Amino acid sequence: MPRYALRVEYHGGMFAGWQRQADQVTVQGEIERALARLEPGPHTIAAAGRTDAGVHALGQVAHCDLARDWEPFRLSEALNYHLRPLPVAITACARVEGDWHARFSATGRRYLYRIVARRAPPAIEAGRVWHLRRALDLAAMRAGAAHLAGHHDFTTFRASICQAKSPVKTLDAVGMAEVETPTGPEIHLRFAARSFLHNQVRSMVGTLERVGAGAWPPDRVRDAREARDRAACGPVAPPDGLYLARVIYADDPFGE
Amino acid sequence: MPRYALRVEYHGGMFAGWQRQADQVTVQGEIERALARLEPGPHTIAAAGRTDAGVHALGQVAHCDLARDWEPFRLSEALNYHLRPLPVAITACARVEGDWHARFSATGRRYLYRIVARRAPPAIEAGRVWHLRRALDLAAMRAGAAHLAGHHDFTTFRASICQAKSPVKTLDAVGMAEVETPTGPEIHLRFAARSFLHNQVRSMVGTLERVGAGAWPPDRVRDAREARDRAACGPVAPPDGLYLARVIYADDPFGE
Repeated sequence: MPRYALRVEYHGGMFAGWQRQADQVTVQGEIERALARLEPGPHTIAAAGRTDAGVHALGQVAHCDLARDWEPFRLSEALNYHLRPLPVAITACARVEGDWHARFSATGRRYLYRIVARRAPPAIEAGRVWHLRRALDLAAMRAGAAHLAGHHDFTTFRASICQAKSPVKTLDAVGMAEVETPTGPEIHLRFAARSFLHNQVRSMVGTLERVGAGAWPPDRVRDAREARDRAACGPVAPPDGLYLARVIYADDPFGE
Repeated sequence: MPRYALRVEYHGGMFAGWQRQADQVTVQGEIERALARLEPGPHTIAAAGRTDAGVHALGQVAHCDLARDWEPFRLSEALNYHLRPLPVAITACARVEGDWHARFSATGRRYLYRIVARRAPPAIEAGRVWHLRRALDLAAMRAGAAHLAGHHDFTTFRASICQAKSPVKTLDAVGMAEVETPTGPEIHLRFAARSFLHNQVRSMVGTLERVGAGAWPPDRVRDAREARDRAACGPVAPPDGLYLARVIYADDPFGE
């Protein structure tokens, strides 16, 4: 059966996460349902990152196997037609080899976390950003983030339900910047790694927020990490601000 | 009675426009209702621009008169409390003189129009941008827009229900650019004038889209304008992409 890679964008607020669940609207479930409108199912698709409820994606990647030889662009158009009006869209589609796997072939993931720091609630970006009512000290947050970058045991920043075999990961980069967007100023945190533990980004963001708010000295991030104890983590940041921005492949199926 | 200037941000998709209407949820109506929670009403507020249903605002400005002497920041906080969970927020508040008027004291308006030009529907920015399924020729649109900038009779670009005394306005500037946003590339059109006619921006955007799509040569924009005939206008662009970005005052009440 021909295999296709799909790049998927979605607003997570409408979904109970990526992973298919009985009686819940999930991104995987809806894409599989759209596939069944094209070819009899059941279909099972695999994704690079199984995002939690409320988490968004700009560049999630999944793959599917179909019986017919679809022209990739036509396949994405047909899926988008059947996905309407849900806030999920196939933004690119490519034919891949039968041994290519959206999850196991991926060599990197990039996450973006958006924060709006101001008193008034964000009327236009509600549900798309984490709203904090006070300013953040980015210099302090950068000092705190320096304790997260690198090869570490991230047990502190891992959900108790995380299924990864090892809590040891390499966080290749953490960046943060004040950014002007069409709807106003935001703070963007960016995370790059080969892979992440369950809830790792939101756990790190929530911890760095404590530093940015002045509640934690930056060095407490190192102490928290070294504790290898979930209880040492800051509060987990809400899903609203988190975006799976991009998945990296050695040979990008979408030619980018 | 002390007078207060309010800067207001809202997502227009939830409202039947700015202006109060019986049995409809409007921005004016909801702010007046929030004011009545602070002081017995009825309250009547005036705005710099009465946006249509679906049109958003980043920097709408209104004013209200209250009996009590409110500390401006506390007033904005109290209003935001009572406006929850509607997608409208008071982002700044200032005490102004009794003869200051949100509409009549304004010396300029700035509008932003956001377009996403790609095949796939925008999953995250749905309702916040105009989705076009083909690329736009910005150079051609700029050539077309050159026929709109300046002092002209804008009858062609005016809603039939427009109540302005004269169709003659000065469009100070039209700009367009490809912009990278947190959620992907967009095309932004920006319009600056002392004031606009009803539906003028959306009429101009819809006309310029025809040029960008290659359906109209740029000079047809001049012909349309010179026709002084509503029928010569291109299709009116949808409200989704339109934002009242800023209102200009000779002496900005918010100190900006």
